[in-house]
Amino acid sequence: MKTQVPLKNAKWIVEPGCVLLVAGGTADRASLMTFSWQTPVKTMDPCLVLLAVNRVRYTHELIRRNNELTINVPGRSLLKQTHLAGTVTGRKIDKFAYCGLTPVKANLVEPPLVAECAGHLECRVVDTHAVQSHDLLICEVVDASAESDFFDGAWIPERFQTLHYLHGKRYGLLTHCVEV
Amino acid sequence: MKTQVPLKNAKWIVEPGCVLLVAGGTADRASLMTFSWQTPVKTMDPCLVLLAVNRVRYTHELIRRNNELTINVPGRSLLKQTHLAGTVTGRKIDKFAYCGLTPVKANLVEPPLVAECAGHLECRVVDTHAVQSHDLLICEVVDASAESDFFDGAWIPERFQTLHYLHGKRYGLLTHCVEV
Repeated sequence: MKTQVPLKNAKWIVEPGCVLLVAGGTADRASLMTFSWQTPVKTMDPCLVLLAVNRVRYTHELIRRNNELTINVPGRSLLKQTHLAGTVTGRKIDKFAYCGLTPVKANLVEPPLVAECAGHLECRVVDTHAVQSHDLLICEVVDASAESDFFDGAWIPERFQTLHYLHGKRYGLLTHCVEV
Repeated sequence: MKTQVPLKNAKWIVEPGCVLLVAGGTADRASLMTFSWQTPVKTMDPCLVLLAVNRVRYTHELIRRNNELTINVPGRSLLKQTHLAGTVTGRKIDKFAYCGLTPVKANLVEPPLVAECAGHLECRVVDTHAVQSHDLLICEVVDASAESDFFDGAWIPERFQTLHYLHGKRYGLLTHCVEV
């Protein structure tokens, strides 16, 4: 069951450096992109996450219209859909439908969540810095939720394997947890 | 054996979002920090990597003296040393010695590499953006090398397991590669 994650714990949803599906737009017109160029930049009050987004991307254009986006965490079972979403632009197609993914209404922002994903951050862009072809979008997390069987304040790799981009068509799976 | 990695492939050393050891300073006075708030921001010509560094960190102070740093990738066998390096400041101790890690001369920058790590990026800070308590250091990669048994243009999880921070004392291991 998906449950709310306290905002002070929101950054742990992206902390492992996993591949994400980032959605922009509105209920009428949304798209998404496969993404792994992100990092937290502030843990809380509020939690800030940075996304380095190429300005040519269609999802970048959608995000800029309302300065809102959702971050969604796919796992091993969504490998094919996640890779597919990174190979085509949503400018002329409905990328959700094309990839077999389901948009659902977010709590506080206009862009949809990706229903099949195990964790979600709802974000508003509060600042932007340009670095050559990319915008560094500084995103305030306004809502967070995750599948409680898979996330207890951190991902549980024995139950849910995040994807980590290696190269080309190769992804790494986070399968084990070790404790110091 | 450690071999040079072409700069056009350098970003794949950090692309999976793994935990890093980032070193600053000189041969006479160096320190390092455990780190996972990074992302590539440009693939090549040159490759740029962003580090979001809290300005209170001693390694930040060292990096600011010469605007150079090294990024080093520890694996599973360095779990204890990597965690330890994240729990203490190097302001009053030699953190390399404290953690049982060995500084070795880099090819093109003043800060040392961490000998025990499997991959290395040598970087110069070319731009900085401030976000509240953190500096976004935009780093140009000027040299890259990796253990050729573990990295063939991407990490090989069956041979070398990167660490991914989960929470507290918990780290995830990237143990499997899946191909779409």
